[in-house]
Amino acid sequence: MVSWDKLTEEQQHQVEVQLSILQRGAADIVPEEALKQKIMKAVVTGIPLKVKLGLDPSAPDIHIGHTVVLQKLRQFQDLGHEVQLIIGDFTGRIGDPTGKSETRKQLSEEDVKRNAETYQTQLAKVLDLNKTTFHYNSSWLGELRFDDVLRLAGKVTVARMLERDDFAKRYAANQPIHVHEFFYPLMQGYDSVSLESDIELGGTDQTFNILMGRTLQGAYEIKEGQVAILMPLLEGLDGVQKMSKSLRNYIGIDESPTDIFGKTMSIPDTLMLKYFELTTALSNAEIEGLREGLEAGTIHPRDAKIKLAKGYVEMYHGAIAAEEAEQHFITVFQKRSLPDEIEEVNLSSEQLDEGRISIIKLLVHLALQASNGEARRSVEQGAVKINEAKLTDIHAQITPADGDILQVGKRKFVKIKLT
Amino acid sequence: MVSWDKLTEEQQHQVEVQLSILQRGAADIVPEEALKQKIMKAVVTGIPLKVKLGLDPSAPDIHIGHTVVLQKLRQFQDLGHEVQLIIGDFTGRIGDPTGKSETRKQLSEEDVKRNAETYQTQLAKVLDLNKTTFHYNSSWLGELRFDDVLRLAGKVTVARMLERDDFAKRYAANQPIHVHEFFYPLMQGYDSVSLESDIELGGTDQTFNILMGRTLQGAYEIKEGQVAILMPLLEGLDGVQKMSKSLRNYIGIDESPTDIFGKTMSIPDTLMLKYFELTTALSNAEIEGLREGLEAGTIHPRDAKIKLAKGYVEMYHGAIAAEEAEQHFITVFQKRSLPDEIEEVNLSSEQLDEGRISIIKLLVHLALQASNGEARRSVEQGAVKINEAKLTDIHAQITPADGDILQVGKRKFVKIKLT
Repeated sequence: MVSWDKLTEEQQHQVEVQLSILQRGAADIVPEEALKQKIMKAVVTGIPLKVKLGLDPSAPDIHIGHTVVLQKLRQFQDLGHEVQLIIGDFTGRIGDPTGKSETRKQLSEEDVKRNAETYQTQLAKVLDLNKTTFHYNSSWLGELRFDDVLRLAGKVTVARMLERDDFAKRYAANQPIHVHEFFYPLMQGYDSVSLESDIELGGTDQTFNILMGRTLQGAYEIKEGQVAILMPLLEGLDGVQKMSKSLRNYIGIDESPTDIFGKTMSIPDTLMLKYFELTTALSNAEIEGLREGLEAGTIHPRDAKIKLAKGYVEMYHGAIAAEEAEQHFITVFQKRSLPDEIEEVNLSSEQLDEGRISIIKLLVHLALQASNGEARRSVEQGAVKINEAKLTDIHAQITPADGDILQVGKRKFVKIKLT
Repeated sequence: MVSWDKLTEEQQHQVEVQLSILQRGAADIVPEEALKQKIMKAVVTGIPLKVKLGLDPSAPDIHIGHTVVLQKLRQFQDLGHEVQLIIGDFTGRIGDPTGKSETRKQLSEEDVKRNAETYQTQLAKVLDLNKTTFHYNSSWLGELRFDDVLRLAGKVTVARMLERDDFAKRYAANQPIHVHEFFYPLMQGYDSVSLESDIELGGTDQTFNILMGRTLQGAYEIKEGQVAILMPLLEGLDGVQKMSKSLRNYIGIDESPTDIFGKTMSIPDTLMLKYFELTTALSNAEIEGLREGLEAGTIHPRDAKIKLAKGYVEMYHGAIAAEEAEQHFITVFQKRSLPDEIEEVNLSSEQLDEGRISIIKLLVHLALQASNGEARRSVEQGAVKINEAKLTDIHAQITPADGDILQVGKRKFVKIKLT
C-alpha cells in the first residue's frame, strides 16, 4: 500500500489529473479506492499499469459504440500506461459445444488470424499500437489440462455463478444453462490471472465477468487484484437502444465518410454531449466548453453536431475526407432533395421553452399537422425530417434555428424564421 | 433391438434364468426393460456384457456392506459376463481443489498403486479375476484438454446437476457447492463412455451418477446406453444404520475369523435373510429354503446365523478357519465367560407370540429386571447378551430356544427352558 502522505505535491497532482481523466464518463469503477492506489503506485514507481480489454474473435466491424472502451484505453496510453488486448481465440475455436448458439460458431485458425489482422488495422485508428500488446488466450488456456481446469472450477461456487444477471434470469425461467457456460467468465478471469492485469475495461454488462477476474487473481495469489472500469453502453442513432449492428442503429468506423457524417447528423441532440464525452479524444475542458455553450445558446446544436461528425470522419478517414464530407453534406442538403422555393414560416420565441420545443408541438404550430395525434403518427412512421435528418423519437426536444428546414412526407416543407 | 419372438425356447429360458438371478436383491434397475434387451442380445450373439463398477482410489478396507455389489458382479461373471473395475485414480490425484474436504485428500501415484494391489487381493475373494479387467481412469481423463472438458460440460445443464439429491439440499440450504464438484458425476459418466459399459452397478445413492453415464453415452453417440443396477444399502450390526467403518458397525473381510464369526452372530435376526440374499453366493433356491424354514420354525434363527457366520469365514479365510471359528465361538460361549452353573428358568409358550417375544418383555418375565423401564435401560446400556451376543436394540424380537442363555450385566444369568 502506497500512502497518500508519502507522495510529493507534484506526485499528488499527477494522481489527481490521471484520476479526473480516467473517471470521465465511467459508469462505475470497482473498487474505486483501488484505482487510486494503482495510480499512486504507478506514479511513485514509474511502472505503467497493465490495462486489459478482451476482444471477440469473430469478424470485427467496429462501430462508434465500441470506441467507448477504446477511447478510455487511449486515455490510459496517453497517461503512459500499457494496453493488453486479448483475442479470445480459444473460445472461438471451441464454438458452442451444444451446437445451439448461432453467435458462437466454431472458427478456424485462419479465421481467427484474419480477424486479428482486421482488428489491428481498425484499432490503430484509436489506439497507439506502440503501447499495445496483443495476446491470443489459446496460448495459456489451450495448455490447461483437466486437472488444471478442475482447480480453476474449484475457486468458485455454483451459487456465485448463478448470481450473474443472465444466468439468474434463465435459471428462474427454467431455460437451460449448460455447465460449460460457467467457464466463459472463468476463462475471461483466468486471462487476467495469466497476464496479471491491473485494470480491465468493459461495458456495464461485463461487471460480473471482470470482477470474476479479480476474484480469481486473489485465488491464484496475485496481490492487489484488477480494478473494473465499466463504461456505459452508448445508445445508437435511435437514441434509445444500445448501438449495435443487429439493430442497424450504428455508425461503423469503416463506413464511407458520407455515411459517417450523415448518420452522425441524425443522432438526437440530447445524446450529443454523451457522444463527445465517450467517443472522442476531446479534453475535459473542451467538453465543458461545449456543454456551457449549448446551455447558454452561444453554440447551436447543429454546429456542435457538425463538429462531432467532422471529428469522426477525421479520426477514421483523415482531415481531407472530413472537409469533403462536410461539403458534401451541405451540398446535398442545399441542392438535391429540397424544392427550390420553400415557404418561410414564422416561429415566435414565446412558443419556445428556453429556446426548445417538442417536435410534436412544433409540427402543429407550423401548421404542418392538424393535431398532436397526427403529428405523433408522422414521427413514428419516419416521415419527419429536420435539415434532412430523419427524426423518429416522439419525445424529441428541438432547438430551432433560423433557416432550419422541417419536412413531413415528400411534399410538405417549411423554412423556420424565428421572430 | 432383438425381438423376443425370434429367440429359441432354449434362449428364452436362458434369458429368464439370468434375469431371475440378476434381479435378486436389486433395489432398482433403470431402465428395467433395457436389461432384458441387453441379456437377450448377449444370449443371441454370445458376446458377454461389460459390467462396470467404480472403486474409490483411497486405501481399501472392504467390509460385508461393500460385498453387496461385489456378489452381484460375481453373479454376472458366473453367467459368463465380464467385469470392468475402474480405479478412480484421476480423482484421487486431484484431491479437493478447495482444500476443504478431508475425504478427498490428494493421493500420490504410489498411494494409488499400493491401494490398487490391496484391492486385487481383497476382491479375489469374491470375484473371478480371470473375468475381471482393471482400469485406471487417469488413462483417459488425464488426456482430456480444456476444449474436451468444455465439450463434456456442454452435454448437461446446470438445472439437471442441481437435481442431484445432495446438491439440491446444499443449494437450498445456501451451503457452497463449488463448480468443480459438477465434474465428479461427469467424470464417472465419461468412464462409461470410454469403456462402452453395458451395465453399471452401485448403491442406491449412485442413481444420479450412473444415469449420468447413460446420458453421456447417448450424447457421445453410443447406442443402447448402460443400465443402472442399484443395490440396497446394507444395514450394519446395529440393524439400523448403513454399514460403514466410521459408524463401527461393520464386518471387515480382512478381520480375524473369530471377529467375523462373533460379529455376524450379533446381527439382528430380522436382517439375517437380507444378509444371505445380498452378501452370499447362495442360490435363490437355497435362500427360499432358509426363508421357509425360519418362517415354519423348522430352522432356528441361531443355526441360520451360524451358517451365515461360517459362510463368511469360509469365503474370506477358507473352510478350515471356518470350522475353527465355529468351535472357538462354542467354546467361549460354553466355557469362558459363563458361570459353571446357571439357573434354569421356565418360559411358557403362552408368553410368546408365534414363537417370538420382545426383549423387554422377556427380561421382565424371566425376573431378570423389575420393570420395563429398567429392562430398556439395561438394553440401551449394552448390558444384555443372548448366547454371548450383545443386544442393543430395545425393539428387538427374540425367538427363544431351549438352552438359550440370557445375561444382564456381569452377574445375572438364566438358562431358558421352554414349557
